[in-house]
Amino acid sequence: MDEREALARLADTLPGAGDDCAVVGDRVLTTDMLHETTDFPAGVDRYTAGWRAVGASLSDVAAMGADAEAAVAAYGAPEFDPGEVDDFVRGAREVCAAVDAEYVGGDLDRHDEFTVATTALGETDDPIRRGGADRGDAVCVTGALGRSAAAVRAFEDGDAERGNELFRFTPRVAAGVALRPYATAMMDSSDGLARSLHQLVEASDVSDLGMDITESYVPVDDAVREVFDDAEARREAALFFGEDFELVFTLPSDAVDDAREASPTPISVIGNVTWDGVRMDGEPLPDRGYEHAGE
Amino acid sequence: MDEREALARLADTLPGAGDDCAVVGDRVLTTDMLHETTDFPAGVDRYTAGWRAVGASLSDVAAMGADAEAAVAAYGAPEFDPGEVDDFVRGAREVCAAVDAEYVGGDLDRHDEFTVATTALGETDDPIRRGGADRGDAVCVTGALGRSAAAVRAFEDGDAERGNELFRFTPRVAAGVALRPYATAMMDSSDGLARSLHQLVEASDVSDLGMDITESYVPVDDAVREVFDDAEARREAALFFGEDFELVFTLPSDAVDDAREASPTPISVIGNVTWDGVRMDGEPLPDRGYEHAGE
Repeated sequence: MDEREALARLADTLPGAGDDCAVVGDRVLTTDMLHETTDFPAGVDRYTAGWRAVGASLSDVAAMGADAEAAVAAYGAPEFDPGEVDDFVRGAREVCAAVDAEYVGGDLDRHDEFTVATTALGETDDPIRRGGADRGDAVCVTGALGRSAAAVRAFEDGDAERGNELFRFTPRVAAGVALRPYATAMMDSSDGLARSLHQLVEASDVSDLGMDITESYVPVDDAVREVFDDAEARREAALFFGEDFELVFTLPSDAVDDAREASPTPISVIGNVTWDGVRMDGEPLPDRGYEHAGE
Repeated sequence: MDEREALARLADTLPGAGDDCAVVGDRVLTTDMLHETTDFPAGVDRYTAGWRAVGASLSDVAAMGADAEAAVAAYGAPEFDPGEVDDFVRGAREVCAAVDAEYVGGDLDRHDEFTVATTALGETDDPIRRGGADRGDAVCVTGALGRSAAAVRAFEDGDAERGNELFRFTPRVAAGVALRPYATAMMDSSDGLARSLHQLVEASDVSDLGMDITESYVPVDDAVREVFDDAEARREAALFFGEDFELVFTLPSDAVDDAREASPTPISVIGNVTWDGVRMDGEPLPDRGYEHAGE
């Protein structure tokens, strides 16, 4: 059973699964495990690791349209180098501060492989779920895609400074809260744009739902153009690589202007909710995302 | 830097650290990472692993005197065997149900070593911290100690059924809530009784605080007598081994009767808060606990 099948199986049995966070009364709660071989390329420093790991959980809070309250992290490593632990905590605190949340600590565990489990807590009375898209809605994303793919390439090219810079991101909590009155369905883009669109379609109760998007409307991060020479690699980075932590969402098309006004992060309309499957420029868009190494 | 030094260092820099949970408004939040080589002896089944891992975080909620609301777990393993994942989730759900909390899901991660990170959320307006012990208070524990030491021995002896049974425990959430009006300081006994007493003394703002406990008052689990033949091994199991998840707490001595009446779990008074260090039967009790293998 691969990770995706196993997650789908869990979603069937657990009331809170299937969204970016579980909903518990007026709170949302999410947890993620990241580890060295699959999530932190060689060159990622502990400051960036703390920022990114905690940021990934805060992004899940953002995807529910919730205010971010707090985060914790469990840090497993072969050695507890004081400088490394301090750097990790500094990154964790700074990403929390960037979204008005508090980093409130965690656990340390001696582990053969650098492994981090992060948890974030958010608050909302009216969470935005994945399942609310309806025909006629606009399909949108915040910010720009492909930044993490560019970061991984920078690490591969030995430019760790640039890689670390690109690997840190601001979770879209403020945008998620601003979109709360408008969005009908929302998730983050950590699995890649293509797979996110498929997931929003699958989560909807509306039968025969689809999305039609236009490739030239998909916002691509400047770093992608810097780092990748050919068009195919740029396309892969923006559409499929994922790990970008932007928000992918739908909203009634007459609410786009108000949502744009309200959101502190730029919003791009990339298409519409239609019939029967996900298409880009009229062709089926494969339900394919980033596969972690080793899967 | 060992795990303890590193945790102490973190506690100095993080506002929420130093108690069993971080306090976030009217919520408490805690996370723990457990993994195969140090936390799950050979023979632990996935049902027990799910129960115990989630239970460990719920025990931290109990130690704050909070109501338990919800828990999540990140599950890392080399393979996602459907039966194993289901068993883990069943254990996680059942331990949550035992304390009126809800298991709301988690994350799956492909990992070389079986690794679990659990997080629990609780609610209280008035958390019980570690730092409130004062001279004249009674020193108490819930239930009985040594059960986990007995479980590990059962696993070593090849009696996995007995080991698994002893490894599952009911987190003391109901007792923690019942003790909220009375307890001046509280933590769970996961680091062992001796170390817990030292930690309660260190956390107090009162200078020259101490505790005097009487060994014969320390409640020892029946399984310890079953499994260990000699007195020294039994003593080690009850005082130092830890991983037992009972509550260790202090309260004014005139509140003991009311607390006993209120708590659904039996309470044993094992000594008093006094002057200058932790002693048992007049002799200094070493600040020593269970050291995980490999540290």
